[in-house]
Amino acid sequence: MISVYKVGGNVVGDPAALDRFCRQFAAVEGPKVIVHGGGVRASQVQKALGQEPVKIEGRRVTDAQTLEVVTMVYAGWCNKDIVARLQALGCDAIGLSGCDGGVVTARRRPPKTLSDGVTTVDFGFVGDVTAASVRRDLVLRLLDAGLVPVFSAINHDGAGQLLNTNADTMAAAISVALGAKLFYCFEKNGVLCDRNDDNSVVPVLDPPTYQRLKAEGRVAEGMIPKLDNAFRALQDGAAGVVIRNADLAVPGGTELKL
Amino acid sequence: MISVYKVGGNVVGDPAALDRFCRQFAAVEGPKVIVHGGGVRASQVQKALGQEPVKIEGRRVTDAQTLEVVTMVYAGWCNKDIVARLQALGCDAIGLSGCDGGVVTARRRPPKTLSDGVTTVDFGFVGDVTAASVRRDLVLRLLDAGLVPVFSAINHDGAGQLLNTNADTMAAAISVALGAKLFYCFEKNGVLCDRNDDNSVVPVLDPPTYQRLKAEGRVAEGMIPKLDNAFRALQDGAAGVVIRNADLAVPGGTELKL
Repeated sequence: MISVYKVGGNVVGDPAALDRFCRQFAAVEGPKVIVHGGGVRASQVQKALGQEPVKIEGRRVTDAQTLEVVTMVYAGWCNKDIVARLQALGCDAIGLSGCDGGVVTARRRPPKTLSDGVTTVDFGFVGDVTAASVRRDLVLRLLDAGLVPVFSAINHDGAGQLLNTNADTMAAAISVALGAKLFYCFEKNGVLCDRNDDNSVVPVLDPPTYQRLKAEGRVAEGMIPKLDNAFRALQDGAAGVVIRNADLAVPGGTELKL
Repeated sequence: MISVYKVGGNVVGDPAALDRFCRQFAAVEGPKVIVHGGGVRASQVQKALGQEPVKIEGRRVTDAQTLEVVTMVYAGWCNKDIVARLQALGCDAIGLSGCDGGVVTARRRPPKTLSDGVTTVDFGFVGDVTAASVRRDLVLRLLDAGLVPVFSAINHDGAGQLLNTNADTMAAAISVALGAKLFYCFEKNGVLCDRNDDNSVVPVLDPPTYQRLKAEGRVAEGMIPKLDNAFRALQDGAAGVVIRNADLAVPGGTELKL
């Protein structure tokens, strides 16, 4: 069974948290993959360059300048920092972006109507991916060679254009393509019944419970697209999905069931 | 016979020249590898971030801030831009930095005495590589799978530290490790007898001719370390070394002979 670990920008941008995650991930047995974000650092670099990060409904609007920054930060600094840390721990990591070996091809997102049903936004150089976007044979070949692929969420359209992709969606696509178990790792212990109580983790979440928690406002904001992605991955063929703390020493988390 | 093409920062930083090079390189037959620079763009990004690039005897002094910038620019933007262009041309490129699969391990350069014999400089996070630094079996495995490795000159020390490496030296090390033919591609037509006459290319250069041209001041500045590297690569087992125009439609160049 292949395991796919998604780690977000809050962990990647925090050297102590990243160090802890890498040490624990290096000890995970069996074939494994990382998909990482880096949004916290990308926004810092944008600001240092005098650019103002623009996000709409949580997604970064990506003009040509922003694309260069996110490619530098995700595919460059964050990816190589993680790979060098893992190599030092004896984990034979290899960093990949979607263009590398054409491993993940994205489709540029057409202008999108927002949740208000009225406003249309062109997110720019942003790409969407599905399991069919993944060059499964290449990932399996690398895993067979004992390598540990570490993916940034910078993909390409196959016609020379790089595209910024949501790392949660990319992790879901890769998990479905590989029939892998997907671990969404972040700074909380799982899906919480009470957002202010870190111990109120819902151990098992099925669609009716998810709908109820949403209706009660207990699950809101960024958690909704994450869980929508996660349930879709499970339906589409991921071997399992767990939402958990990026500190892998914290047991448990929320396991999704259909 | 494997071919290794080194392209410098002047080509990588010029979209028209890079496009031309990529189209011509995609058409090169047989197993092939790129090693690229990106110094022109790195200096621009450093300045945009309010950092002042410091170079001593042509080599960039690399403090922690500079290391992050060169990793972002070389391993991130330049590497993925080249790979996405090649993929669009049907060339199955895969971008690698030395940490990826531990493919090139560098040794941090100790403080170095300059050519004046007096001044000692610590270049910071700068690494040196030799043919023994290259994980030959991994490169051959990728080539066997029909992939075209595209290397940035960001390497690691195997203990978690990224190191900025001279791309000419890295290309030489990879060529020796693979017994490959090395093409140093740049903006001139080869080694020139008269620096102001682009048609004065020396077609074949042997060590006595090199020493004579140096003594006469015809070969000077940045060309000297490049040629020293090149002759060393030939001595150490590269199958051949040619100094040539990055526009591969320009015939000829300078072939080195021992």
